[in-house]
Amino acid sequence: MNIMSEGYEVAILGATGAVGTRLIQQLEQSTIPVSKIRLLASSRSAGKKLQFKGEDVVVEEAKPESFEGVDIVLASAGGSVSKKLLPEAVKRGAVCVDNTSAFRMEPDVPLVVPEVNEKALYNHHGIIANPNCSTIQMMVALEPIRKAFGLKQIIVSTYQAASGAGQSALNELYSEAQDYLDGKEMSADIFPTKGDKEHYPLAFNLLPQIDVLEDNLYSHEEWKMIHETKKIMLGDMDDPKIKVTATCVRVPVPISHGESIYIEVEDKENASVEAIRKLIDEAPGAVLQDDPEHQVYPQPINATGKRDTYVGRIRPDLENKGAFNMWVVSDNLLKGAAWNTVQIAERLVADDLVEVK
Amino acid sequence: MNIMSEGYEVAILGATGAVGTRLIQQLEQSTIPVSKIRLLASSRSAGKKLQFKGEDVVVEEAKPESFEGVDIVLASAGGSVSKKLLPEAVKRGAVCVDNTSAFRMEPDVPLVVPEVNEKALYNHHGIIANPNCSTIQMMVALEPIRKAFGLKQIIVSTYQAASGAGQSALNELYSEAQDYLDGKEMSADIFPTKGDKEHYPLAFNLLPQIDVLEDNLYSHEEWKMIHETKKIMLGDMDDPKIKVTATCVRVPVPISHGESIYIEVEDKENASVEAIRKLIDEAPGAVLQDDPEHQVYPQPINATGKRDTYVGRIRPDLENKGAFNMWVVSDNLLKGAAWNTVQIAERLVADDLVEVK
Repeated sequence: MNIMSEGYEVAILGATGAVGTRLIQQLEQSTIPVSKIRLLASSRSAGKKLQFKGEDVVVEEAKPESFEGVDIVLASAGGSVSKKLLPEAVKRGAVCVDNTSAFRMEPDVPLVVPEVNEKALYNHHGIIANPNCSTIQMMVALEPIRKAFGLKQIIVSTYQAASGAGQSALNELYSEAQDYLDGKEMSADIFPTKGDKEHYPLAFNLLPQIDVLEDNLYSHEEWKMIHETKKIMLGDMDDPKIKVTATCVRVPVPISHGESIYIEVEDKENASVEAIRKLIDEAPGAVLQDDPEHQVYPQPINATGKRDTYVGRIRPDLENKGAFNMWVVSDNLLKGAAWNTVQIAERLVADDLVEVK
Repeated sequence: MNIMSEGYEVAILGATGAVGTRLIQQLEQSTIPVSKIRLLASSRSAGKKLQFKGEDVVVEEAKPESFEGVDIVLASAGGSVSKKLLPEAVKRGAVCVDNTSAFRMEPDVPLVVPEVNEKALYNHHGIIANPNCSTIQMMVALEPIRKAFGLKQIIVSTYQAASGAGQSALNELYSEAQDYLDGKEMSADIFPTKGDKEHYPLAFNLLPQIDVLEDNLYSHEEWKMIHETKKIMLGDMDDPKIKVTATCVRVPVPISHGESIYIEVEDKENASVEAIRKLIDEAPGAVLQDDPEHQVYPQPINATGKRDTYVGRIRPDLENKGAFNMWVVSDNLLKGAAWNTVQIAERLVADDLVEVK
């Protein structure tokens, strides 16, 4: 079969959400030849019309049978939906790229940032997991450094955008902000995390909780950054070779996460700011924005809508040789979600890892 | 002379600014007996009426002669004003507590956080410097830990409020936010830093630059956090005993700075989350807000208007024994500026270090 003329049948699961609408966009702009698109969502959204490449597509309720004939599934409808439906899609011969955390830590599920561990795709069993947004951009920035100089330790503090919690959370940030500016009390129903007991305003505030706080005192988001980093860079979620610790904070920014990252490299003799700048400048998916003299550094308002990860403020720790600080920003809905998912699908297609039915 | 009945003549330099108005407030609520108050500002604000303890006070233009008869000066009118006028005040016998960075690094000027190094006040020569806002709250949180377990290294990432750049900057944040919500373009004239070449919006954005970026690639704010910490804790701005590095970021929050702090202690055997929680709970000026089960942790909206420094999210680095993460929030205009300044003046009075004329 000539796939270039026929193309792939692609289903987007969770097509109406903040990530879902961007999955449609990114797929439209991708190199994947699409013969048919299916937009799937909950029964609540079924019947709604969306567009794909200028044509109307009616959203269907996602059911096991929805995946009949589908070659590629791009999923972003929440962990429980993925857990229930993706095995059904695999059973029907589809390859699934899942943007939820449902399967990320299963040993036989590749967790992939194409710039880092594309090769892991060759071991897939029908499901490939897309990492957490805050992990992905850190991987794009640090992988070139790891390859050149090795990494001993990563200490990261995040400045995460509201949209990471979904479209309704983003709307809540805006309505809270307007209430605050009008001198009204802010009401909070979503942040810090939808399923938790207490809710606090995010507008003009900072919330040092993303996802639930666990018994080990870390939030689940922090846990993800630690273990996903190890799985992506080292192939094992508990590999002690690179020490990782994280503090995740939600900030009143709509889109694009910021990260203050401190690293200690193995090759202390050869690592330098100049060398790291050169590595970032040449790295796929990364853009160097590091010109202190002209006040050039990554900012969320400039990164939003872009696929790249922006890196700047690279500085040596003045008292600890081989350690560096840097500031990394990327669109959490694109490289942190929709683009990385579509990019994985592109690599699956390019590497001939999807069987066309 | 019975100072308790007579009291001190106090001048507030820069009385009309964001910190100045809070200096008036904090002085009203302080234990210092005030016999007379002088409110000084630039010629632009002269003639304006403010209140002190319910009485109208006319703002006067600050001149060298303004300090005749003054016992205590509380200054927050900018570095160049302090440089010019405080030596004049000292010449006239006043003791000055300066909230600017003008004298902080002079070896014979004590740089004081009363909870940490009150004793340094005994060596004053007329001027005492109030540290930078972001440094002060870190000192309140870390000093009890340093005393109990020793500190090897501090790695801090800040989330700093707009008001740290003054009242006009705070107004700019609000007007930018309203423009953004109205779908208009945001115009920026102040952030990241008034005197610099480029200006970027702060509303719904993050700016990894506070104060100017220097040749060593650090911002001047980061430089301050490094060297002020050493001077306050160790008595010498270049003491290598505690390694300090910092990344300072401005966030779209009006008041109260957040800080994600990573520390490595010397006594790795005895330091624990429980021990650190107990130390913070008993420390002067610090309040423990660390109950993950009930989602209790420091937030700017709760810290604003309070004198204390709030500490929470205390966690062990799971892979590096003796290292801990924590999250610290305090009102940058109170403990970070006005309250610490008045608190120093209270200690000067209590320790009999001000001569009444």
